[in-house]
Amino acid sequence: EQTFNHIRKFGRDSETLNVIYVVSDDWKLVDDLRIKEIILAYPTRKIEDLTDNRFVALNVLDDQETAIRAFSDYDRVALPVVDDEGILLGIVTVDDIMDVVEEESTEDFHKFGSFQSAITNPLKERVIDLYKNRIVWLVALVFVNIFSGAAIASFGDTISAYVSLVFFLPLLIGSGGNAGSQSATLMIRSLATGDVELSDWYKLIGKELLVSLLLGVTMAVGVALIASIRSPEIIWVASLTMVLIVVTGSLIGMLLPFIFTTLKLDPATASAPLITSITDICGVVIYFSVASWLLF
Amino acid sequence: EQTFNHIRKFGRDSETLNVIYVVSDDWKLVDDLRIKEIILAYPTRKIEDLTDNRFVALNVLDDQETAIRAFSDYDRVALPVVDDEGILLGIVTVDDIMDVVEEESTEDFHKFGSFQSAITNPLKERVIDLYKNRIVWLVALVFVNIFSGAAIASFGDTISAYVSLVFFLPLLIGSGGNAGSQSATLMIRSLATGDVELSDWYKLIGKELLVSLLLGVTMAVGVALIASIRSPEIIWVASLTMVLIVVTGSLIGMLLPFIFTTLKLDPATASAPLITSITDICGVVIYFSVASWLLF
Repeated sequence: EQTFNHIRKFGRDSETLNVIYVVSDDWKLVDDLRIKEIILAYPTRKIEDLTDNRFVALNVLDDQETAIRAFSDYDRVALPVVDDEGILLGIVTVDDIMDVVEEESTEDFHKFGSFQSAITNPLKERVIDLYKNRIVWLVALVFVNIFSGAAIASFGDTISAYVSLVFFLPLLIGSGGNAGSQSATLMIRSLATGDVELSDWYKLIGKELLVSLLLGVTMAVGVALIASIRSPEIIWVASLTMVLIVVTGSLIGMLLPFIFTTLKLDPATASAPLITSITDICGVVIYFSVASWLLF
Repeated sequence: EQTFNHIRKFGRDSETLNVIYVVSDDWKLVDDLRIKEIILAYPTRKIEDLTDNRFVALNVLDDQETAIRAFSDYDRVALPVVDDEGILLGIVTVDDIMDVVEEESTEDFHKFGSFQSAITNPLKERVIDLYKNRIVWLVALVFVNIFSGAAIASFGDTISAYVSLVFFLPLLIGSGGNAGSQSATLMIRSLATGDVELSDWYKLIGKELLVSLLLGVTMAVGVALIASIRSPEIIWVASLTMVLIVVTGSLIGMLLPFIFTTLKLDPATASAPLITSITDICGVVIYFSVASWLLF
């Protein structure tokens, strides 16, 4: 009863009364009691009988992602924040965290689509700001793509000897980029939700190698069918290239997010367009090298 | 006081006591009272004095996205669910919703990276399931890319006359795909968070046209600089193509998510690889058409 009177006296301005935090005389956090436990207890019991000294708290130095994970692990609607000495500084409520979850997802999503920073609402954004946000990556990727062009140009003789090679260029190179985007998507999201840690990369590389080999072989069969109708002379070139390109693309897509994380960059910076551009260069070199080797 | 006794008697098994739902005799929801209001009220007041008949509730037929939006709009930790007659069926708590928010983001993210369905944790997933989840889109995109190959092959004469055109092929075509991925990212995420509605597309198309024109012109200047060093004879072809490709790519990237939504498909199905493959075809046709027109 005394507790309720205290709550009535001091609780009027607090954001939430769902959980009552019990502190010692020097403001150290001792326990978190759900209001449910207090209400359901007999009116004559004292608070100290209800405390069990077990509680979940965030440290004031924890980052947003740690906070998100604590909320989803413990299914709480509010968590207390303490400093290194365990002194209660305040609380964070789940509605703040829900906004943060959406924010972080949007940020990752936009980085992966090669924006410089997240845009909240395109309807409200000014044209010039949308332009600035998009142009940097677009120009940077032009310079990456110069290498693909240079690689294609350097194989000019091979191309003029077998013009049918050009038919399979977008299909083979595109497949490497698509497989790479898939791997990158998987890794970026898993690193963001915390399902995968930085130290897991060597476990994943073996798995990815196996999956991409299966994907590559399946697609090589497909490309062999197309080649058998259109240009049987390059069946082997196209099929072998497909396997090599899909495996290479997948490994680049998988490793780049890890490398960015190690360099203290957001893994989502390994955007789909970046992966596509890098695997394009590798794809061109692989394709025409295999062609030079098997056809001449 | 009577209220507290009632809560003590019946509240023991309920998931949350933060909000008490007041119902009429026929179980119609009348009001939601925060436990805070009840605790802070004088012990002698009756519940009916506290009710104001204003409450927020979800309909049992609402979809997940509506529920997410209601939680973030009203900053609640729990919401009651009613049927069409207003009869209280139960409650949904914010920790359920937080899981749903993460799930939906992961789903969108994975669809955008051209997975068939979301993968929760790649470490736990079997190789064969990862394979099945990825192969369908990869094979489908091979068939889309056949058209790019066919388009390139059909311009064989133009290419042999001006081999330097090949140097700029990946750079120009890639830029269309990158600009398209950006627009699609922006639209998919905005449609998911509810910032943009289906009916907003005509407002956005004008804005996107303007933004992409600015992007295209900037990149055309860049490509003109590269061409002036490498092959001055195609400066105008490369520059004009860049503007046209960036604008076309952006519009495709913007409209495809809207079209998918209209067709009752998830807008995220307009994945980065799909946008890239479609803009590739348009890019090839635009590039060699401009070349044929300006050079011959």
